[in-house]
Amino acid sequence: MSTLPAAIQQPDPAIIFEALNAYQRSSSLKAAIELDLFTAIGDGRRTSAQIAADTHCSARGIRILCDYLVIGGFLIKNEEHYSLSLEAALFLNRHSPAYFGSVARFLLDPRITAPYENLAEIVRTGRTTLPDQGTVSHDNPVWIDFAKDIAPMVQPAALEMAEMLAGDSNVRVLDIAAGHGLFGIMIACANPQAYITALDWPNVLAVATANAVKFGVEDRHTILAGDAFEVEFGGPYELILVTNFFHHFDPPTCETLMRKIEAALAPGGRCVTLDFVTNEDRVSPPTAAGFALMMLGTTLAGDVYTRREYETMFRNAGFASSELLALTKSPETLIVSTKHA
Amino acid sequence: MSTLPAAIQQPDPAIIFEALNAYQRSSSLKAAIELDLFTAIGDGRRTSAQIAADTHCSARGIRILCDYLVIGGFLIKNEEHYSLSLEAALFLNRHSPAYFGSVARFLLDPRITAPYENLAEIVRTGRTTLPDQGTVSHDNPVWIDFAKDIAPMVQPAALEMAEMLAGDSNVRVLDIAAGHGLFGIMIACANPQAYITALDWPNVLAVATANAVKFGVEDRHTILAGDAFEVEFGGPYELILVTNFFHHFDPPTCETLMRKIEAALAPGGRCVTLDFVTNEDRVSPPTAAGFALMMLGTTLAGDVYTRREYETMFRNAGFASSELLALTKSPETLIVSTKHA
Repeated sequence: MSTLPAAIQQPDPAIIFEALNAYQRSSSLKAAIELDLFTAIGDGRRTSAQIAADTHCSARGIRILCDYLVIGGFLIKNEEHYSLSLEAALFLNRHSPAYFGSVARFLLDPRITAPYENLAEIVRTGRTTLPDQGTVSHDNPVWIDFAKDIAPMVQPAALEMAEMLAGDSNVRVLDIAAGHGLFGIMIACANPQAYITALDWPNVLAVATANAVKFGVEDRHTILAGDAFEVEFGGPYELILVTNFFHHFDPPTCETLMRKIEAALAPGGRCVTLDFVTNEDRVSPPTAAGFALMMLGTTLAGDVYTRREYETMFRNAGFASSELLALTKSPETLIVSTKHA
Repeated sequence: MSTLPAAIQQPDPAIIFEALNAYQRSSSLKAAIELDLFTAIGDGRRTSAQIAADTHCSARGIRILCDYLVIGGFLIKNEEHYSLSLEAALFLNRHSPAYFGSVARFLLDPRITAPYENLAEIVRTGRTTLPDQGTVSHDNPVWIDFAKDIAPMVQPAALEMAEMLAGDSNVRVLDIAAGHGLFGIMIACANPQAYITALDWPNVLAVATANAVKFGVEDRHTILAGDAFEVEFGGPYELILVTNFFHHFDPPTCETLMRKIEAALAPGGRCVTLDFVTNEDRVSPPTAAGFALMMLGTTLAGDVYTRREYETMFRNAGFASSELLALTKSPETLIVSTKHA
């Protein structure tokens, strides 16, 4: 019906409509997880009537929600039958050992999402509208929920990291901003001669300790309560882990911590950073680069750094070299920075 | 670094992370429109420092926001220079005649978005948590803002419709739930012998009347205040327009209105519906099918209907035939239903 030649690129106003309504993608996935819809389908409920009965929901609500989840790639529809996409089956069916539906609670906690109700104001000032220092404020209770809710999502990456790093000799490990503690704990599981010190705010360390008990490594897992910038690290350590932490701070603050880490490492010891790392263009890969908006909304000065920025910061802090390693189980990158021998 | 053969499909946990954070896509586009960032770039500001100065924003905020908009396809980045995507240049630069940034205010009005804060509850009951009948409640003031904010977005489709439908002979047109009134007004502009009656709640009709004056057709534009289900239509009409209206109601309610429309048409007259229409699978095309979630969240019984459902409803209401026509300027579809001659 168009009177224009097909070769001319047509502007698509629908992409604006879709972006403005994208919040419904978040809401719908959160609702489906809360209703355990993916588990119901995994258990063999196929039609919207069956799924509605199993989840104690209305037929209209389930039909519309399921169709929306098909559009989003979380369900597959075949005639009137729904089934789970690969990701939904693996990560959102409560019976799957890799289930991490709890992440929805943390990521959509109002303490995280509130700043996005008026993002223009944050862009004006360049600082989160959350009180104090945003999510990195001292003892912010949001990190207790983070430690509990996000652990299942990061466990595959923690395992992968442990396989790459744990070694088989005596190793002392400091796990900075340990949270759930899984990154250190997986190393303790992989290497019976690894001794872990988990550092975090005291209210969060209870979660890490509980996980150490759960994985049977509590005899090689001690805690160090305090602020990573203020507490004495002790040591020396052969390995210091800094997972999902540097992105909360500006480069001078990162370098300050890197120097403190360097000082606490044994000669030849390694600082292992797990974080989002962008290409030099700062817009790819999309998951890593897009995380910068989370830092704009929830911190005073956090950011996602490029490979070159990480290398520069670690060099400035006295490290001999840094090597970047991709993970297969995470969109984040490992940066292994080695102290002079 | 993967040890798995490349041929095996790898599950991607990042799609869950991205969907749960998708609300930031809405927030970021809304913020950019509010800050008139696209206009600043259209005016020749290229670096984040230039754009920040022009919009009175922080450099950090603008840099992170612009990079995020590159990821979303609204900006293009070349080294440190940003430029507008085709859609941003046409629809989001305030100097463009096709600008419709005002749509952000309506689509992200808390009166529309509030139900999505607890969508699970709505899926349970199958009904909006908004008071009364949701957005279709009598005299809901949200429609005044709709009429004002959404008009620029629909104008290209209204023009396209008028070219297809206005004809050149004497025609009486009833524009049901007229809102901004543009669908009728564009017909009046295209055909000097077209006489429009705009029906809506009285508080909204002021917007339609103002638009009729703006386009110089006020002498052929009269208003009819009331509820489309209750008010006397008068007539007969050669053409009755029902734009963005049927999706708010269940099929019996739609058929009731279609019967009333059929009775108000002259023999051989046409009812012209503009609405989202899905394929029989109800999950494609995505923009049309996904709109069902808007109806789940904000109405008691609204939905997006398939081509076959529209044909059946119009046939049940006494119409001789229905023809579907795609538009190039809208993701919505025209349904032209003809009364027996």
